[in-house]
Amino acid sequence: MNLAIPRRDGPAIGGAGYAPLDEAGLRAFLAAAPGAAPLLGGPPGSWSVREVGDGNLNLVFIVKGAAGGLVVKQALPYVRLVGESWPLPLERAFFEHEALTAEAALVPDLVPRVHHFDPVRAAIVMELLEPHIILRKGLIRGTRYPRLAEDIATFAAEVLFRTSDLGAPAAEKRARQALFSANAALCKITEDLVFTDPYRVAPLNRWTSPQLDRAAASFREDAALKVAVQELKWAFLSRGEALLHGDLHTGSIMVTDTDTRIIDPEFAVYGPMGFDLGAFMANLRLAYFAQDGHATAADDRLAFEGWILDTLERFWTRFAERFLALWERDAAGDAFPPALFADPAGAAALARFRQATLGRLLADAAGFAGAKMARRILGLAHVEDLESIADPDRRARCEIRALDLARTLMIDRARFGSVAAIRSLAEAVRRR
Amino acid sequence: MNLAIPRRDGPAIGGAGYAPLDEAGLRAFLAAAPGAAPLLGGPPGSWSVREVGDGNLNLVFIVKGAAGGLVVKQALPYVRLVGESWPLPLERAFFEHEALTAEAALVPDLVPRVHHFDPVRAAIVMELLEPHIILRKGLIRGTRYPRLAEDIATFAAEVLFRTSDLGAPAAEKRARQALFSANAALCKITEDLVFTDPYRVAPLNRWTSPQLDRAAASFREDAALKVAVQELKWAFLSRGEALLHGDLHTGSIMVTDTDTRIIDPEFAVYGPMGFDLGAFMANLRLAYFAQDGHATAADDRLAFEGWILDTLERFWTRFAERFLALWERDAAGDAFPPALFADPAGAAALARFRQATLGRLLADAAGFAGAKMARRILGLAHVEDLESIADPDRRARCEIRALDLARTLMIDRARFGSVAAIRSLAEAVRRR
Repeated sequence: MNLAIPRRDGPAIGGAGYAPLDEAGLRAFLAAAPGAAPLLGGPPGSWSVREVGDGNLNLVFIVKGAAGGLVVKQALPYVRLVGESWPLPLERAFFEHEALTAEAALVPDLVPRVHHFDPVRAAIVMELLEPHIILRKGLIRGTRYPRLAEDIATFAAEVLFRTSDLGAPAAEKRARQALFSANAALCKITEDLVFTDPYRVAPLNRWTSPQLDRAAASFREDAALKVAVQELKWAFLSRGEALLHGDLHTGSIMVTDTDTRIIDPEFAVYGPMGFDLGAFMANLRLAYFAQDGHATAADDRLAFEGWILDTLERFWTRFAERFLALWERDAAGDAFPPALFADPAGAAALARFRQATLGRLLADAAGFAGAKMARRILGLAHVEDLESIADPDRRARCEIRALDLARTLMIDRARFGSVAAIRSLAEAVRRR
Repeated sequence: MNLAIPRRDGPAIGGAGYAPLDEAGLRAFLAAAPGAAPLLGGPPGSWSVREVGDGNLNLVFIVKGAAGGLVVKQALPYVRLVGESWPLPLERAFFEHEALTAEAALVPDLVPRVHHFDPVRAAIVMELLEPHIILRKGLIRGTRYPRLAEDIATFAAEVLFRTSDLGAPAAEKRARQALFSANAALCKITEDLVFTDPYRVAPLNRWTSPQLDRAAASFREDAALKVAVQELKWAFLSRGEALLHGDLHTGSIMVTDTDTRIIDPEFAVYGPMGFDLGAFMANLRLAYFAQDGHATAADDRLAFEGWILDTLERFWTRFAERFLALWERDAAGDAFPPALFADPAGAAALARFRQATLGRLLADAAGFAGAKMARRILGLAHVEDLESIADPDRRARCEIRALDLARTLMIDRARFGSVAAIRSLAEAVRRR
C-alpha cells in the first residue's frame, strides 16, 4: 500500500476571501465549485439549502437539487459551542481534508466521498449520506446496527496499522506525521478538555448538580487518578504510533442498517493507537450506561444493553483479528522487519510479541476510554445519550455508574487482560 | 525557557553552487563568509588549512590565521565511510545547524559556537575547539576527565527535559518535532545499522573473524533478542519524547581537563530520551571492556576501568538529579501540569511518578545501550577503542564480554532497577 504523502502548499487556508457562507454565498460557491453543480442538477436558485451543524465547531449545509444532494462543511474561526471568544484556526479544514483523503485511500467505503476542497473558504464539499443518521442518535433510540462492530474494526485496523511503523516505511510515516503535527490547535482542545479540565476547577466544566458534586470533587482530589490521566496525556502528546481520527466517538459515525461511514476527522494527528480505539469504546459504554435512563415500561432496554456490550466485544475481537492479519501479511514498515523472524523460533517469538502488543493496545484503549467517558460527564462537552435523560436524578444515577467504570479503566488499565473482563466489570457497575 | 521554533525556509540546502570544498574554494568561502575573515586575521592566502574529518560522513577543515582559528564542517553527498555508492542528503547540515542552535539556547557552554551556516554549500563555520581532543581518544589513552559525568548529565537533562512535553508547550514541541521529522535519511541509517543489520546477514557487517563468528551467528538466531531490539527500534521510530542528539557517543564529545563540548548533532530527531542516554553509556561501556586490550605490564588499566564505571554511575546519578530538579522547578509543558498536583496527596503521587519515570528512562537507556554496543562490534561502523587492539584474539576477548553485556541489557532492560546493578553485572562479565 503506498499512501501519497500529503503536502502543505497552495493557497493559505481561510485567507483573504474567507467569510462564513450564507445561503446566497453557498449557492454561488457551489455553482463555481468543480463538479458540484452537475451533481445537484438544475439552476442554483432551485437548490434547497439547510444548515444542520449540530457539532461543536463548524457550519454544515445540506444542499439538494433535482439530480442529487451534497454536504458542505465549513470551518468557523471560533468554537461554535462556546462562541467567538474562543478562536480556532480555519486550517483544521485542511487537516480534515488530508485525513479524509488518507482514509479514503485505505477504506474508501467507510468514509464520505470528497468532491472538492476549497482552501480559501476552509470548506469541504462532500457526499450527502442518505438515509444515514448519526450513530449516537440511533443508540439513544435503541436501534441495532449489525455491521457496526465489523466496520469500525476494519476502519481502525486498516488506518492504524497502515499508517504505523509496522505498516509504512519510516520516511513516509515521518513525513505524514510532520504534516499533521501542525494541527496543534485542535490537539490542544483534546489535551485540555479530555485530560486536564475534568480534574481541576475549570470555568467551562459542568455536571449534573448537585447530584454529581461529590463525584466531581473526588475526581479533582484523586491523586492516583490524576497521575493515571496525565500518563495518558503524555502518551497522547509523545507516542506517535499511527494516524488517529482523533475524535472517533459515536457522533462521528453515520449509519444505516447496511452502511457505516466515519466522518469529521478534523482532530487528526499522529498519536497512540489506543486513543481512537478507546474513544469508540468509551462512547459505546456511555450509550450502555445511558440506556437505564431511556428505559420505559414498554421497553426496559436490558436486551439493548446486552447488544451494546456484544458489539463492543465483537469490535475488539474483529479489530484484533484484522490488525494481526495485516501484520502477518502486509508488514511494510521499518519496525519488526519480517525477514528477521523468518526462522521457526523467530516466527514463534514474533507471534508472542504480536499478542502482547494487542494486550498493550487493549490496556491503552481502556485507559483512554476512561478519560473520554469522564470528560463527557464532568467537562465542557457532554453527550446526548446522557443529556437527553430529562430527570436529573435518573441521569445522575447513570452518570455515576459511568464515572465509576471510567476511573477503574484509567487506574487499572493494565490489569484487565481481556475485553471480556472489562465487560464483566461494566455489568457489575451497572447493577449497583 | 522559550526556544525559538526553527523554520525551514531560505535557499535550498546544497542547491546549485554546491561542490565539495577544496583548499582554494575554502579560502574564497571564508573570505566572504560573514565574520569569518576577522576571526582568522591576515589575508586568505596566509591561512593554514587542514582537512581532519575522521568521522564517517563529512569534510572537516581546521583553518588558522594570525588572529585565530575556525572549523568548517561540510556535508558530502554520500557516506564517506562507504563511498559515493551510498548517497546521503546534504540537508543533514541544515538539521545539524538547527540542533546546534537549539542546544546553544539551553547549554551554550557545552556546544561549539556557530559563526555561520551556508545552506548552498551545506557548510557550518564554527568555533575551533583547542586544545580539546575527541573523548574516545582520551579514553583509549587512559585519561581521566573530571568534568565529564557532570557536563554530559547537564547536557542531557537540559536538552531532553526542556524539549519534551514536560518542559515545552505542546504547540512548540509539535512544531519542532515536525521540523526534525524531515531528517528521515539520517534516521534511516540509525534504524538499519543499529537496530537491524547486526541481527541478519548484511553485506556491510563485519566482525573480528573467525573469533566472533559464533557470537555473530548466535545474535542472528536469538529470537528473544531480535524481538527486544525491534521493540527498541519501534520505540525509536514512534516515541517522540524529546529532541535527541541522535549520535551521542564518545566520538561526538570533545574534552579537556576543564571543558566538555558536544558536537555533531546531525542525526538530531525527536525520539525516546533513553536513546541518547543509552548511547553515551554504551560508549563508556565499550571503553571499559576495551581497557583490558590496552593494558601493559606498566599499566594494567584496572584503576582506569574503575574510573569509567564511576563516571558512568555519576553520569546517571547527576542526570537523574538534574532532570528531577528541572521537572520540579520548570515544568512548562502540557504533560503533568503542576497545578493538578498542588495538594499534598497530589504532590506525593507526582513525586512517586517522577521516580518511576527515572526508572523507566534507566530501563530504556539500558536497552538502547545494548543495541549501540552490539552494532559497534557486529555491524558496519566500529569504534577505535576496540579496533586499536591489534591482536585479534585479545580484541575478540574484549568484544565477547561487551556483546555478553549488550545482550543482557537489551533482553533484561526492565529488570535492573539501578545503575549500580548494571555496574555489578558489567564487572561480573569483565571477570569472565
